[in-house]
Amino acid sequence: MHRLSQDFKGSTVWSTNWATIWVLTVMTLASAAGAIAPAHAETRATLFKLDNGMRAVVIPDHRAPVVTHMVWYDAGAADEPAGVSGIAHFLEHLMFKATETMASGEFSKRVAKMGGQDNAFTGQDMTAYFQRIAKDRLPVVMKMEAERMTKLKLEPKEIRTERDVILEERRTRTENNPTALMREQMDAALYLAHPYGTPVIGWMNEMQKLSHDDAVTFYKRFYAPNNAILVVSGDVTVEEVKRLAKEIYGPIPANDNVKRYERPREPVQRAARRVIYRDERAGKPIFQRYYLAPSYTTAKPGQAESLDVLVKIVAYGATSRLYRELVVKQKLASSVSGWYDGSGRDYGKIAIAAVPADGVSLEKLEAAIDAVIADVATNGVTQAELDRARNVYIADYTYESDSQSTLARRYGYGLIVGQTIEQIEGWPKALEKLTVADLKAAAAGAFDIRRSVTGTLLPEPSKPHAGATDAPAKPAKQG
Amino acid sequence: MHRLSQDFKGSTVWSTNWATIWVLTVMTLASAAGAIAPAHAETRATLFKLDNGMRAVVIPDHRAPVVTHMVWYDAGAADEPAGVSGIAHFLEHLMFKATETMASGEFSKRVAKMGGQDNAFTGQDMTAYFQRIAKDRLPVVMKMEAERMTKLKLEPKEIRTERDVILEERRTRTENNPTALMREQMDAALYLAHPYGTPVIGWMNEMQKLSHDDAVTFYKRFYAPNNAILVVSGDVTVEEVKRLAKEIYGPIPANDNVKRYERPREPVQRAARRVIYRDERAGKPIFQRYYLAPSYTTAKPGQAESLDVLVKIVAYGATSRLYRELVVKQKLASSVSGWYDGSGRDYGKIAIAAVPADGVSLEKLEAAIDAVIADVATNGVTQAELDRARNVYIADYTYESDSQSTLARRYGYGLIVGQTIEQIEGWPKALEKLTVADLKAAAAGAFDIRRSVTGTLLPEPSKPHAGATDAPAKPAKQG
Repeated sequence: MHRLSQDFKGSTVWSTNWATIWVLTVMTLASAAGAIAPAHAETRATLFKLDNGMRAVVIPDHRAPVVTHMVWYDAGAADEPAGVSGIAHFLEHLMFKATETMASGEFSKRVAKMGGQDNAFTGQDMTAYFQRIAKDRLPVVMKMEAERMTKLKLEPKEIRTERDVILEERRTRTENNPTALMREQMDAALYLAHPYGTPVIGWMNEMQKLSHDDAVTFYKRFYAPNNAILVVSGDVTVEEVKRLAKEIYGPIPANDNVKRYERPREPVQRAARRVIYRDERAGKPIFQRYYLAPSYTTAKPGQAESLDVLVKIVAYGATSRLYRELVVKQKLASSVSGWYDGSGRDYGKIAIAAVPADGVSLEKLEAAIDAVIADVATNGVTQAELDRARNVYIADYTYESDSQSTLARRYGYGLIVGQTIEQIEGWPKALEKLTVADLKAAAAGAFDIRRSVTGTLLPEPSKPHAGATDAPAKPAKQG
Repeated sequence: MHRLSQDFKGSTVWSTNWATIWVLTVMTLASAAGAIAPAHAETRATLFKLDNGMRAVVIPDHRAPVVTHMVWYDAGAADEPAGVSGIAHFLEHLMFKATETMASGEFSKRVAKMGGQDNAFTGQDMTAYFQRIAKDRLPVVMKMEAERMTKLKLEPKEIRTERDVILEERRTRTENNPTALMREQMDAALYLAHPYGTPVIGWMNEMQKLSHDDAVTFYKRFYAPNNAILVVSGDVTVEEVKRLAKEIYGPIPANDNVKRYERPREPVQRAARRVIYRDERAGKPIFQRYYLAPSYTTAKPGQAESLDVLVKIVAYGATSRLYRELVVKQKLASSVSGWYDGSGRDYGKIAIAAVPADGVSLEKLEAAIDAVIADVATNGVTQAELDRARNVYIADYTYESDSQSTLARRYGYGLIVGQTIEQIEGWPKALEKLTVADLKAAAAGAFDIRRSVTGTLLPEPSKPHAGATDAPAKPAKQG
């Protein structure tokens, strides 16, 4: 129903309990995991662990008598078996069906009756469920969430109906969206071995075959307290949540069979890739580039922070290098943007996107973009650029940290992909430490065309024999 | 040691028992599975099945007192778990180590002492072992092969040494071969979901981690009589082989746990892909195109046969369309070739390769190639072209069918990827039935750029910021 805050990036599929998916194609500047700036001292989180292995984090915020209650599962699309893409997200939908004591759909109805909101979302690295509700109802929603953790009644008759729902979602959000289709093909080309190349919502042909067995298998494998993180933010005390968590989630037995397949890692990436997608439904041509990058979880200290700031300087907003050069000065682009998604457990991604100005070819636009990137990769950025970007980041984060649910998501996401509370809370400090030398070093390695995919969306009829029109240009002199 | 006959295509990795790999980068015109032309009536094969589920095929050939004995396992690289690429081939190497009664390396020594040759190879869809030996030694090698089917002693101490061997093979055959590297990247881009995108020999980073456990798991999962096909060609009778097979392979118990993960299928392919690989070790620039295609196992009746003949007409040999147009007439290419690999269980592939003449750009070459392809896709081929290509094919096959080991491989490969003896033996007849209308229909669907990857190998230093030089050209008018 409501569009969730947009400070998540990449391929996360958000869906409401009534099965609307929000694919976040419009990105804001805010990064996801790791990019955590506690606004006030009192928002610092406390982490503890139950005897059954369930972790919990509490972020007190006493400004209003409401709480945000989330449960994060360490199981996402990248954990799906080959050929069963979409099952993580499908199961997320099925989690709103019947449990031992609730009828199908009753979960959300109860939350709504209590004046609350609930929702869920699935990403490559996690699946999460949340409710925002008056504080005195926290024990109630906790009990409901605890119940569906292991007592979901996955009835075969629900499969077909709900599968039709996710198929329709894919049609609406992906099949009917040329940009989404191009990006999906780009992701498939960016990852040679890692499952991030598979869309979170799933490939259509695999979604059509998702079965009751697939859902049960995924549920039994991953939905257990020792594979979950509880996040409560809002008008609560740590002691209160500890007591409730122990009482409500504590009795759920750990599942010793929770086991993650080790995900494949990328082999050496040696060759630039291109994806040429023609779709007459597209309004304008689009240029898009992805570079494989480290994530906050896998980067060297300071590296992911540098990339966050660097990409902001290069590509985000009206003061960015690309905007000033391409939109304002050379008038080659009508829009340009870019972001660094450092939120993945295994890999991050830098994205650059641009729409050419009327009458400008994608080739000319691309050459100009590459000139700007090559300059930054060689010469780095200025102290003034670093200061401005960093300050805006921190200011934005301070502002956004006022949101109880944003905070809950930040901690939940950071923890689920393997960060510590210290890393999560230390983000602004890490940002403050960055020097232009750090950014220069990051820039030198970030824009390696051999680890990239360049996508072009052409608003033309799809042509089977258009090969020659996709041939590479003569080498340009710059770059 | 000896180079095996080249009538296999694609990514099959051949290795001798002393661990040399033959990656067949030079292709001959002959297709693999399905492309089976029995030379003489007496070469017709007889298929039977043992009680433990092992299938056997006998192809008598009494011209010389020798036999070819093969065991094919229905387990190849495409059956490897994600992240464990290379284990099928690694296990093939380890199969020459110790068994219960043989010391490490003794298998091949014994075969050599008996005056025979032995070898093994691994592909995406199968792993096979064979010996060529005097007919009176058939029972001996059969016993040896039967022993290592389930009684291999996979000793941990062998792992490190033999892993170094396969790593060195990868370095020699792939890492030091720019064309192989480009093709590997192209395969990774051609398949969005199917495991054919992973190289048979494995990704280096995954090979480095292959363990004793990985090998044992793969061995126990797939090496069993009910997952194997025995092929004996040569100076034997069906009754003789039946008796021996029953006596020697019959007592090996079936393994009810042999289970194939269902391989993912490709989603709709919507966007042309390109791979731009720079390597200063390359001698010349190379243009290569892959189109995803059906295989003999998955094609409609006549479709794969049409593709075999069509691609021969378009791209193979000095009478091909591309050769006459590009090498002879326009003098844009110094060489051009192409082949259809229809041997896969799940997918086939059409390949077109060309080297530009001195001073000719890859872009110009590609445009000319696409013009030829577009013409064929639109207008088909002539009856004279069909007749000539088909006749050459059948003549070649009749000639090649004189080889006992070629015959053994044809039946083995065909059966292992799911064909029947009738299909395998009916290939020449199916070829004879083809009409220009069949080829026109096949051509119309075969060269769909949206289901293709175009690779360019540039003999230049690898450049991280070469983005703009890889930009697509302005749309050409043709195509």
